[in-house]
Amino acid sequence: MVMITPVILSGGAGTRLWPMSTADRPKQFLPLVGIETMFEATLARVADAGQFADPIIVANARHEALVRDQLGGRPARIILEPAARNTAPAIALAALLDPHATLLVMPSDHVIADVTAFHAAVQAALPLVAQGWLITFGIAPDAPETGYGYIQVGDALATGVHKVARFVEKPDVARAAQMIADGDHAWNGGIFLFQAQAFLGALSVHAPDMLHACQRAMDGARHEGSTIHPDAEGFMASPADSIDYAVMEKAAKEEQGSVAVVPVSMGWSDVGSWDALAALAGDTGGDTNIFTHDAANGLIRSDGARIGLIGVDDLIVIAAGNDILICPKGRSQDVRKIVEQLPKDAG
Amino acid sequence: MVMITPVILSGGAGTRLWPMSTADRPKQFLPLVGIETMFEATLARVADAGQFADPIIVANARHEALVRDQLGGRPARIILEPAARNTAPAIALAALLDPHATLLVMPSDHVIADVTAFHAAVQAALPLVAQGWLITFGIAPDAPETGYGYIQVGDALATGVHKVARFVEKPDVARAAQMIADGDHAWNGGIFLFQAQAFLGALSVHAPDMLHACQRAMDGARHEGSTIHPDAEGFMASPADSIDYAVMEKAAKEEQGSVAVVPVSMGWSDVGSWDALAALAGDTGGDTNIFTHDAANGLIRSDGARIGLIGVDDLIVIAAGNDILICPKGRSQDVRKIVEQLPKDAG
Repeated sequence: MVMITPVILSGGAGTRLWPMSTADRPKQFLPLVGIETMFEATLARVADAGQFADPIIVANARHEALVRDQLGGRPARIILEPAARNTAPAIALAALLDPHATLLVMPSDHVIADVTAFHAAVQAALPLVAQGWLITFGIAPDAPETGYGYIQVGDALATGVHKVARFVEKPDVARAAQMIADGDHAWNGGIFLFQAQAFLGALSVHAPDMLHACQRAMDGARHEGSTIHPDAEGFMASPADSIDYAVMEKAAKEEQGSVAVVPVSMGWSDVGSWDALAALAGDTGGDTNIFTHDAANGLIRSDGARIGLIGVDDLIVIAAGNDILICPKGRSQDVRKIVEQLPKDAG
Repeated sequence: MVMITPVILSGGAGTRLWPMSTADRPKQFLPLVGIETMFEATLARVADAGQFADPIIVANARHEALVRDQLGGRPARIILEPAARNTAPAIALAALLDPHATLLVMPSDHVIADVTAFHAAVQAALPLVAQGWLITFGIAPDAPETGYGYIQVGDALATGVHKVARFVEKPDVARAAQMIADGDHAWNGGIFLFQAQAFLGALSVHAPDMLHACQRAMDGARHEGSTIHPDAEGFMASPADSIDYAVMEKAAKEEQGSVAVVPVSMGWSDVGSWDALAALAGDTGGDTNIFTHDAANGLIRSDGARIGLIGVDDLIVIAAGNDILICPKGRSQDVRKIVEQLPKDAG
């Protein structure tokens, strides 16, 4: 049985869950769903030592203490990026660190409710991985979301595994609705499985500058035990692109393109907005900081402030640190309109 | 020209403007309307040394520092109540301190926009005050408010001064609307003008226990310069009643009752709710802590927290200290429903 090395991507500094999520403490490090953080849940998802090797964490250097704290002593290699360069260079660093491994690349800020289904999807893909295919996982779409890329599912290659017909970048809502109606599209969940060599090979074809820059960063890396500090100058020379754009979309277009998708229904959410969290979590209830009168069905979160609510239904109220967000359910995608107005130092 | 001694009542610990107004710092000491506090505005209203003597402040002992700070060095006698016993005993203390004075009794937490009209009303009443009448000021009602007492305006006694036909306690809304339709009722604004002797005389008839207790409190008072600490045991023996209930209503019912009202339109507000403040202040604007997107016509106040608002119109949001209030305009009378739920130590 092939051992899989998890690569956990934690480079994001998402502010879509402002004010709880900030550049200093992005959402993967917050216990937003249940008592563990999404980073911790991602680690737990690949904790089976019979199936998974110790993970490689790729994180922003400013989050080193958070990563170390939430690893809780679990062995891991930690690659600390001197700056965020999107997913493709982050994965390249991990692939260069362990070029003979089979890598399962996962964002650290997603929820997967049905871990059994996830593991089954991974197992289904392994025979093709051994043949050098690049595997992505396709989430069954349940709404015409415009915030995700879509994957058109092509011909079957094996049980549960299909050729990618093509990748579709974030669509408008009409296009999204059409794809759902067509029934042969899945969301691109940002989870990937491949041999490190296969990825590096694709990178050498489709993004040679990136491969070169990341190679330079790793050649010049400083190692402190299991912590790796890539050379900053080398890494900063890399283009900042997503794996989808830099590799997967281009590889899928090749005549002999070996990019496959495993459609999977596993209770996935990228928790990309307070509304997404509300759909997962519902009303929290029982928070001793929250006092209501004639107010129902809200998503009310506070990290300490006392909140009194009167006569407001379906409201999102998030109090964190010195900041408060107030918006109706259904409007939380506009959080960025607030974050854009904030002074830069507040991230 | 008779000199008038202002008596400024600052005993209230109103929580109707929670969370800004708290037991430790009630609303009269907050700059809610403009840059000065209502306590300061009340002092300024009676600052003309040709017309007004130095004021007597009656305040809760816990607010001594606030009173002293906001007096800003202005000479005043300060009576510090060991506990709140409502308005009648507070006024009795002041009357006993200066029994030969003519007293203008004013709450410290009201707004009067047209001070000229107020002064004119006071001048109109003085001839009757000299004859021993107890004067109240009647506010022209502009809505069927159920939170105020009403005064039925009787026969004219002099230009602008009328006998009180009767006092009406806080009515229901139908009764309030009827009184406004009748056109001969005014709101009881809680502002009074009389000789101290006349008030003490009425007190001796209608509330002799109160007079006795307050006399005992002042006989045993400790004087520190111009600060007076009434004897606590004596004062606590007094019934806790409003001047309206203890004296004015009863005196007005007497055959020879000498209670008069001066109807006056002077831009009065008791700022008794956030909605009342919204009516006075409108949107604050220009607060660098407030960030909006598609949100209009709110009353948003913050003493430091940053507030981001998306897609919410006509909302009241008040952030003060560790507390946040959120309610639609028109619902702020229910703030008490929140305050009642708070742990007692939070006042």
